Amino acid sequence: MELIRDLIPLQSAIQAWRRQSQGIALVPTMGNLHAGHLSLVREAKRIAERVVVSLFVNPLQFGPTEDFSAYPRTLESDRNALAAEGVDLLFAPTVQTLYPRGQADQTLVVVPASLSEILCGASRPGHFTGVATVVCKLLHLVQPDIALFGEKDFQQLLVIRRMVADLNLPVIIHGMPTVREPDGLAMSSRNTYLSEAERAIAPELYGTLRRSIERFQRGDSLPSVEQRALEELKDLGFQPDYVQIRRQADLHRPEEEDTALVILGAARLGKARLIDNQCFMKGGG
Amino acid sequence: MELIRDLIPLQSAIQAWRRQSQGIALVPTMGNLHAGHLSLVREAKRIAERVVVSLFVNPLQFGPTEDFSAYPRTLESDRNALAAEGVDLLFAPTVQTLYPRGQADQTLVVVPASLSEILCGASRPGHFTGVATVVCKLLHLVQPDIALFGEKDFQQLLVIRRMVADLNLPVIIHGMPTVREPDGLAMSSRNTYLSEAERAIAPELYGTLRRSIERFQRGDSLPSVEQRALEELKDLGFQPDYVQIRRQADLHRPEEEDTALVILGAARLGKARLIDNQCFMKGGG
Repeated sequence: MELIRDLIPLQSAIQAWRRQSQGIALVPTMGNLHAGHLSLVREAKRIAERVVVSLFVNPLQFGPTEDFSAYPRTLESDRNALAAEGVDLLFAPTVQTLYPRGQADQTLVVVPASLSEILCGASRPGHFTGVATVVCKLLHLVQPDIALFGEKDFQQLLVIRRMVADLNLPVIIHGMPTVREPDGLAMSSRNTYLSEAERAIAPELYGTLRRSIERFQRGDSLPSVEQRALEELKDLGFQPDYVQIRRQADLHRPEEEDTALVILGAARLGKARLIDNQCFMKGGG
Repeated sequence: MELIRDLIPLQSAIQAWRRQSQGIALVPTMGNLHAGHLSLVREAKRIAERVVVSLFVNPLQFGPTEDFSAYPRTLESDRNALAAEGVDLLFAPTVQTLYPRGQADQTLVVVPASLSEILCGASRPGHFTGVATVVCKLLHLVQPDIALFGEKDFQQLLVIRRMVADLNLPVIIHGMPTVREPDGLAMSSRNTYLSEAERAIAPELYGTLRRSIERFQRGDSLPSVEQRALEELKDLGFQPDYVQIRRQADLHRPEEEDTALVILGAARLGKARLIDNQCFMKGGG
């Protein structure tokens, strides 16, 4: 596996593959890889002749009070894990390489507020603009036929799909199911922020989402389900941000006739801001 | 020459060429083609094996009080002119095809304000966001190796270069000199808005820019040159918007040591808003 940090050698590698008409899959990551990332890599290997993983902790998607500096960076073990999976190329640029003029003077990709300023976007102003911008750059640099993202970041996945559709990017966006610990906790690099006591509580975010779906399916109203979930999370020791039931397609509030729904939750637990979600069909039991 | 209006047949044509490793040049236009456009097409023919011209009057780059509806649309004569030049493909989508969700709910490409909200961007809020967004879409749809733009729209050319650099778009942006009428008037579709009397005065926008450069080279101060140009234009019957001397590279105000400069002017004359510019070297006489 080749480790590339600069743009010119990346272009050479990509162009060589494209000249041979080899299919390229991209798995964009912020590193600190876990089984969730590796499931994306394995799917990428299955689909395409060449697999590129990008590893970049993107400052543009972190707010000024967020965990950009603290975000876990584990390049050596990530590199070993990806080499063992048979990844062809690890692209790990510096901040200076991707933002040579600095972040403040950067062309931005701004997805409509109706999708990017709700839920996590309401709590993290500018977050999804940072995500859309860096993913747009990576898609241009790697020119993949397909790019893979985890459904754990459900809103992020929709933001990227929307950017790709609105800007006519010639790439397929492929979402993959959330990978969970045996006790149900969604795999996340931010789980490393949890103390032992917090780690024991953490799976209850997913537990609360599942219990909320059950209540909704039994006929409890949407506002009462959401309210009760927030109280449950508080009682468990979380500081909840939101729990909401939305349409899968566009994260709008569901209308009576909508059946493909998703419940999404975000809550702080100690130093970690955890998110999770679960898709379901209304009336699906 | 093939006329294509929809995205799927465009993709088929582009993919066929790319599979054969044929170089593709794109000339984006709003139609109503004149000798300036045709100079871009001829250069494109010289450079690339396949030439695509896009023809789209982009509503996203027009303000609510601007001339979107009045903008001259002459598809049949444009089509004949391009076929005569040996263009391979004319892509002329509808507004619905490029903005299926409407303009208000569209992902936008926003170039930094330091470049996009000065000069014409100050007078036309959102204009360069509309330009950057549609050009980004066209570059994704046509996937050209090179795209050609006229230097007459000097700020637009810099906005596009900046977007391409900041988003790492895999395309070369090629600027071409302004084509002028024998009396010096820069070719523009908006010249058709001029009455006979206005048409006689119109070349004086360029005349004023050239006289201003002479005054600057003779040692007149930058503010006095700019002020005098505005007065001259008013006396001639224009309603001037701005005349400014800037750095060619980034349109910043020139520092003492900058030598590659450009004078840019915009003025209304009757129903037309005319723009023009001239690059020059400080001390170049």
